[in-house]
Amino acid sequence: MDSVGLGLWKIDNDLTAGVVQTAIDCGYRHFDSACDYGNEREAGDGFSAAIAGGKVKREDLWITSKLWNTYHRAEHVRPALERTLADLQTDYLDLYLMHFPIAQSYVPFDTRYPPGWFDDPDATSPAMKPEHVPLIETWQAMEESVSAGLVREIGVCNFGTSLLRDLSNQASVQPAMLQVELHPYLVQEKLVRYCRESQIAVTGFSPLGAQSYFQLNMAQADEAVIEQAIVKDIAANYSKTPAQVVLRWGVQRGTAIVPKTTSESRLKENTALFDFELTAEEMASINGLDRHRRFNDPGEFCEEAFNTFFPIYD
Amino acid sequence: MDSVGLGLWKIDNDLTAGVVQTAIDCGYRHFDSACDYGNEREAGDGFSAAIAGGKVKREDLWITSKLWNTYHRAEHVRPALERTLADLQTDYLDLYLMHFPIAQSYVPFDTRYPPGWFDDPDATSPAMKPEHVPLIETWQAMEESVSAGLVREIGVCNFGTSLLRDLSNQASVQPAMLQVELHPYLVQEKLVRYCRESQIAVTGFSPLGAQSYFQLNMAQADEAVIEQAIVKDIAANYSKTPAQVVLRWGVQRGTAIVPKTTSESRLKENTALFDFELTAEEMASINGLDRHRRFNDPGEFCEEAFNTFFPIYD
Repeated sequence: MDSVGLGLWKIDNDLTAGVVQTAIDCGYRHFDSACDYGNEREAGDGFSAAIAGGKVKREDLWITSKLWNTYHRAEHVRPALERTLADLQTDYLDLYLMHFPIAQSYVPFDTRYPPGWFDDPDATSPAMKPEHVPLIETWQAMEESVSAGLVREIGVCNFGTSLLRDLSNQASVQPAMLQVELHPYLVQEKLVRYCRESQIAVTGFSPLGAQSYFQLNMAQADEAVIEQAIVKDIAANYSKTPAQVVLRWGVQRGTAIVPKTTSESRLKENTALFDFELTAEEMASINGLDRHRRFNDPGEFCEEAFNTFFPIYD
Repeated sequence: MDSVGLGLWKIDNDLTAGVVQTAIDCGYRHFDSACDYGNEREAGDGFSAAIAGGKVKREDLWITSKLWNTYHRAEHVRPALERTLADLQTDYLDLYLMHFPIAQSYVPFDTRYPPGWFDDPDATSPAMKPEHVPLIETWQAMEESVSAGLVREIGVCNFGTSLLRDLSNQASVQPAMLQVELHPYLVQEKLVRYCRESQIAVTGFSPLGAQSYFQLNMAQADEAVIEQAIVKDIAANYSKTPAQVVLRWGVQRGTAIVPKTTSESRLKENTALFDFELTAEEMASINGLDRHRRFNDPGEFCEEAFNTFFPIYD
């Protein structure tokens, strides 16, 4: 898996197929998708066009997708995966991740797809509806998708060390990947180290931190890590952009990253990370920016947006 | 269960029986014990003497104990509990808690009891030896101790929301109690709220914060919450001690607390919390002291003392 992938979260549907093809033209081979992003059909159109056009073969690509919260019951995992495969227009995923350690009540495909965070979209006060599904039930169904040949590897997102360890202690197929929010304001050194020592690869989402959250009003204007003087100074030294320094920090610490962009110049900028190396001191000074600031926390946004108190990190 | 209990951690063996009896004389009925504290036999001597002396009956007491990490395998839970019952000289516990979400390799009683954190006490570099036991295996064995009549209620310590939720989703007997570190430097508001909304009672250990850790060199001299001006000012207003204000904050937010002391005057001080009430503003100002400072973190001390990186909260 390439250490830099294109994150497909929040890419508008009418842009997605084009962005995927442009990314492939720019050399991207790793794509980070999810049912919940709501653009898997269009991403699939992009993959199909690139493959039909002879630019790449399926086996050149690494396609990750994620099981949504409403499909945690064992009997819903395979249909959810098959829907994702159909949308992405592929016979298999390279990696299938449990999107959150959160089980919500089932929503049939023809009621709403993707179903999102709340149960009744017509309610005046939309609420999330949790369901009591053990994580191991979901995981075992994901394991079956490996033996069925639909998925090469499986993993989880948004787990901490104790959840990961307990899953690992019960799993027949070990988790190959943890995807979590990682950036210089949320360094999570112990979690990353735990995964390294446990042979679990790590992908950081929102690798630029607040940049992913301004449009969602989930970050304050003064929370941009790329505005930090330390980052700007290092960037100037290497004639790189502050974003490249932050992304380089991500890959240099041994994690994969999945920055999102729709612009061709940014697509190129975000992969041009391998012609410079940060010094140990620079890495340490960026680590030192840590504020334990998590922008993507269901314990916060589910209450504000969906009237449901559902903490997972506390 | 009385909201103030006597925590038996770190009470010297030769003092324990006497402290237990003095505490009973002072009105304590709730005692917080654990295999790992290494003084259950002496605590049992204290209970037996008080009962034999006609001061209390067994059913007047609330006795909590905790299953140690080395006994997480299903087949070790019952023998560990029976050893605790024999030491405490009682037929049943009111509450039995899983001490940590950590499974260590089994150490037979006649090799070492209590076995503590590391595997080989003779090694020049003692190391902890984790074992791959799912939490649900341990929990199901604890459930059997309820049906066997050896334990009235069961619960866990040192779990976060996601671990608790996943346990609850798998459990036949729901966890009745969560015991975690709680004090004004580690408020854990979301965790406490999650438990309240899930009908899980909460006990805070180390309710005075750093006071429990100075002698262990696990707190800095400037970390005493009872030295905070806010706390001292409130104490002066009510003619209470700073410790009483901090303890009152603990019970007033709806948690039980288990402060430890060996002195009769402190035993009395620590329960004299019910003749005053903090205002909402005072509660909020104490909440505002939160530093997310966890003094008791295996992810820190296991590495320093036992050469084993074992994070559980990250």
